[in-house]
Amino acid sequence: MANATLTDLYEVTMALSYLREDMVRPATFSCFVRQLPPQRGFLIAAGTESVLDHLADFEVGHDDVEVFAEVLQRPARELAGLVGLRFTGEVRAVPEGRVVLAGEPLLEVTAPLPQAQLVETYLLNQVSHQTALASKCARCVLAAQGRPVVDFSLRRTHGTAVAYQVARLGAMTGFAGTSNVAAAHALDLPAIGTMAHSYIEAFEDEEAAFTAFALCHPGPVTFLVDTYDTASGVAAAARVLTALGRGDGSAIRLDSGDLAQLARHARAMLDNAGLPQVRIVASGGLDEYAVHDLVASGAPIDVYAVGTRVGVSADAPSLDSAYKLVAYDGRPVMKLSAAKVTAPGRKQVFRRPGCLDVIGLADEPPPADSVPLLETLMRAGERIGPRDRLADARRRFTADVAELPATARRIRAPEPVRAMVSHRLSVLTERVRRRTEREVLAPFGIRA
Amino acid sequence: MANATLTDLYEVTMALSYLREDMVRPATFSCFVRQLPPQRGFLIAAGTESVLDHLADFEVGHDDVEVFAEVLQRPARELAGLVGLRFTGEVRAVPEGRVVLAGEPLLEVTAPLPQAQLVETYLLNQVSHQTALASKCARCVLAAQGRPVVDFSLRRTHGTAVAYQVARLGAMTGFAGTSNVAAAHALDLPAIGTMAHSYIEAFEDEEAAFTAFALCHPGPVTFLVDTYDTASGVAAAARVLTALGRGDGSAIRLDSGDLAQLARHARAMLDNAGLPQVRIVASGGLDEYAVHDLVASGAPIDVYAVGTRVGVSADAPSLDSAYKLVAYDGRPVMKLSAAKVTAPGRKQVFRRPGCLDVIGLADEPPPADSVPLLETLMRAGERIGPRDRLADARRRFTADVAELPATARRIRAPEPVRAMVSHRLSVLTERVRRRTEREVLAPFGIRA
Repeated sequence: MANATLTDLYEVTMALSYLREDMVRPATFSCFVRQLPPQRGFLIAAGTESVLDHLADFEVGHDDVEVFAEVLQRPARELAGLVGLRFTGEVRAVPEGRVVLAGEPLLEVTAPLPQAQLVETYLLNQVSHQTALASKCARCVLAAQGRPVVDFSLRRTHGTAVAYQVARLGAMTGFAGTSNVAAAHALDLPAIGTMAHSYIEAFEDEEAAFTAFALCHPGPVTFLVDTYDTASGVAAAARVLTALGRGDGSAIRLDSGDLAQLARHARAMLDNAGLPQVRIVASGGLDEYAVHDLVASGAPIDVYAVGTRVGVSADAPSLDSAYKLVAYDGRPVMKLSAAKVTAPGRKQVFRRPGCLDVIGLADEPPPADSVPLLETLMRAGERIGPRDRLADARRRFTADVAELPATARRIRAPEPVRAMVSHRLSVLTERVRRRTEREVLAPFGIRA
Repeated sequence: MANATLTDLYEVTMALSYLREDMVRPATFSCFVRQLPPQRGFLIAAGTESVLDHLADFEVGHDDVEVFAEVLQRPARELAGLVGLRFTGEVRAVPEGRVVLAGEPLLEVTAPLPQAQLVETYLLNQVSHQTALASKCARCVLAAQGRPVVDFSLRRTHGTAVAYQVARLGAMTGFAGTSNVAAAHALDLPAIGTMAHSYIEAFEDEEAAFTAFALCHPGPVTFLVDTYDTASGVAAAARVLTALGRGDGSAIRLDSGDLAQLARHARAMLDNAGLPQVRIVASGGLDEYAVHDLVASGAPIDVYAVGTRVGVSADAPSLDSAYKLVAYDGRPVMKLSAAKVTAPGRKQVFRRPGCLDVIGLADEPPPADSVPLLETLMRAGERIGPRDRLADARRRFTADVAELPATARRIRAPEPVRAMVSHRLSVLTERVRRRTEREVLAPFGIRA
């Protein structure tokens, strides 16, 4: 069962107030990213599957209410209205793997107001960090221009649970494997592994270390060659691979220094040693910027292993996401705070070729040549259709990214694609703004 | 039981090779941060308790070996040597909450080599991200100069597990509470909550919303006043608090706009309304830089709620941490890679007043007026003494931070304190370097 206490306290206090006021009519909340981080030309939708799992299992149990009562320092009986509350609403969302732009709803929840409120924190958490990480992974794949990228992030992510998600989102955006054993097993991904510097140091010398490793592990092996001096490491690797006849499928790994130069030198050494088939893996603080530069330099690197900077999305570790009430009991609503105006009403995103998107109302006629991005994935609290498969998300990713303008896919100084707003949504926004000003502000002599 | 598959694959392949070579003598690995991020003058040790929990429970089960075999595409019988492997070693670590500097071991593990290797990934993950987050929280507390700071990060952390750690590490460094219900309950922290903009929008107007909230929740309440226009929001809050006689202990929250100016205006309005006791809470993208500037501006803000940027440690989401072999079977070892030289041998950090630290060897005589930072917390795979209490970690934090030079505590452009290296450690480093060059590199004509 989903843990209902994984929430900000205010969701609970608001839900209690809604129940007391009998404000249990359907509310629609829209989850979107207001602005892209500076170094992003697009985002990749992610987190939806985690949200659907949570909502399908969501139920406030007696134990949860005891926890709420304790932290509120109130008797549990005053919170009895929450017991047994489940999520019985509808979820419309952009399926994982699709390109999304600033302002576009990633997900819309329509449910009785207390339910839609109680699930806010978990939902925002999952959509925000998973979309941030999927977008980062996507950029690495673009930077590598077809060369394999693998995930080495487990040791530096913010805990092990998110490392699983990085492995999954990497696979969704085209990574070739992960070092994360638990994730590789659970997601049926290729598990990638080499050896650490400490392994080399524990032996008398590199040749002894490489030999012992190869004798223990049949099939292709990857030798780490930069523990003491890269040239000596490559020479030792070449000798061992040749002596044992293990060149086919095997590789060396470079983890420090000037990777482009070292890769050229290593390539020449391996070729001269009659090992042209041995590949070169690069690692060590790599992200899409470093991969882009290495690819542009023509460095003979065959596989890029990315870790820390990708696993925390170092240049954009969070997104400016929001979960905003856009309608209650059939009435569109909006917020007027400075610089944070939200457009009212249930929405749809209409995508035309080239990711020329129009954000409109859910019930307006679609523009010509457009497909709707938001799909109904849950109704009456139950998933519609089978669970989404990672392979399908990957296909959506590949197709959508191919539609993006090259300027949005650029690694440095990308130009974000901007969605347009439909005429009907503009008209509604203006109408609700005037109504809100009239009803809420005018009585106090304030003009927004 | 700790999940042994939460590991990089290479730990498994290395451990298998060590077992095959009968390399099971004690190894010491040292975990430290090579360099501080640019905006850090110090770090706060954290993650030790999670590591001890993991190590105490660590055991490779049959199921784990099945997983290893599957991802390695090898028969499980070839991995039989791993079954039943437990952690039986020693852990010496800096207790949580203490100030640590670049290059200082946060934790040293001494155990039979395969064990010490297998636990690397989990250990690095926990120490790295928890130390990064604790250090970020510490800076927020320093920036607030005694004003309460509370944690609102749950909606944007990289998953919900790390949000629990942020709440805990915030409490360790002096936060006054958290919005995270599960964490507040588990850690016995004050749970903090207000209301969302959506709550206001769901009602006809702000006065109706505030009144309904106050009637539902006895005791102090916090009203969010910037949904439409801050002045109208403050006016409505003042009317409701006055009408219901609920000013004592209550507050208003500002979440957008020019917080310093809005706070001054709100303070004046509240004072004029006869509500000088009503406090002002600020939130909305705050971190230690924003808090510092608001405090410096003299803004009448009573409580700072920090969220996203703190929960992901936005300006330093990862640390340059390492887990390096420093001794095997009594022999000190080191790595010579360019710019990544590690000092050999089991170590100790000797702290003199003012955080004037000396990194030395574990068995050398302590300098005058010094105390050792690393304590033996686990022996023969079992915790020594009772579990550390959060209150004790908080006391250590308070005492250590008070010892730091003001330049290291500075929010902008802090000057990191640098640890010195003892004479004995310098001599050993030089000796091992020469030996390594002689044994490993010289045979190939290479001079490092």
